[in-house]
Amino acid sequence: MDLHPHVAPLAALLGTWRGTGRGSYPTITSFDYTEEWTFTHTGKPFIAFVQRTRSPEGRPMHTESGYLRCVGEGAVEIVAALPTGHVERGAGRADVGEGVLTVHTDAAVDGTPTAKEVARIVRTFRVEGDTLTIDLAMAAVGQELGHHLGSRLTRETMPV
Amino acid sequence: MDLHPHVAPLAALLGTWRGTGRGSYPTITSFDYTEEWTFTHTGKPFIAFVQRTRSPEGRPMHTESGYLRCVGEGAVEIVAALPTGHVERGAGRADVGEGVLTVHTDAAVDGTPTAKEVARIVRTFRVEGDTLTIDLAMAAVGQELGHHLGSRLTRETMPV
Repeated sequence: MDLHPHVAPLAALLGTWRGTGRGSYPTITSFDYTEEWTFTHTGKPFIAFVQRTRSPEGRPMHTESGYLRCVGEGAVEIVAALPTGHVERGAGRADVGEGVLTVHTDAAVDGTPTAKEVARIVRTFRVEGDTLTIDLAMAAVGQELGHHLGSRLTRETMPV
Repeated sequence: MDLHPHVAPLAALLGTWRGTGRGSYPTITSFDYTEEWTFTHTGKPFIAFVQRTRSPEGRPMHTESGYLRCVGEGAVEIVAALPTGHVERGAGRADVGEGVLTVHTDAAVDGTPTAKEVARIVRTFRVEGDTLTIDLAMAAVGQELGHHLGSRLTRETMPV
């Protein structure tokens, strides 16, 4: 399946990535995790993603899924669903320079009736060769925007 | 992996389902599609889902993903992301009676900057034996809530 021309600048992201990360936030105890991200395409102008984390002992922790919409000229939009009862929608950019792809999104977050209050999620994906570095900042439970998750992953499969 | 007790009433939904559907809406030409839904769990109080449709000729059409949060006593919440730039979050119920599982959700919809206006999505999943019937109504592009998608699927794999 050929890549949609709008997806081509993000091609380095496609594939499956695994590695480890660490989470922290002012209201919680810091924690470590292993993480897997899969980014796929169907020839349409978006990339589908699924993320899964496990505790260092292998217990399933978090998962989330969504889409990076490639709306042209390096502009991207993100939509994501999180089983914590949150949905995320926002916009950002994909930029390629000196062999590094950086995708940055800034999103508003809304929740289901029983979800904790999360207002905003800011994500950065940075691909350099076979390394993907992910950072996530959020504004939640009355806190200002602050770093929450950071992970460093290695490409497990070639782009499809 | 044991089912979370809150997920147990929805166990009949777990697995992969395939079949055909038809879409219609006042603003578009009606269309037919083949559809696959996969519902999985990880032992936590939610069900993850991924949906994919293709044209009768096999061309990828729509896809979406999200979670049914089982918040207890038959209450459910839904979060979903759609690559059309929409996110959906709402609440509903799962009811089992006379061998039929019915899951009904009513959700508010928000969009990314370039997404078409969609205000509300109402879904019904009905499992009777190895048949899953899905209906989706939406309020979009200025129209009142009305039927959009209906499909009838057959269980392809046993629950996991």
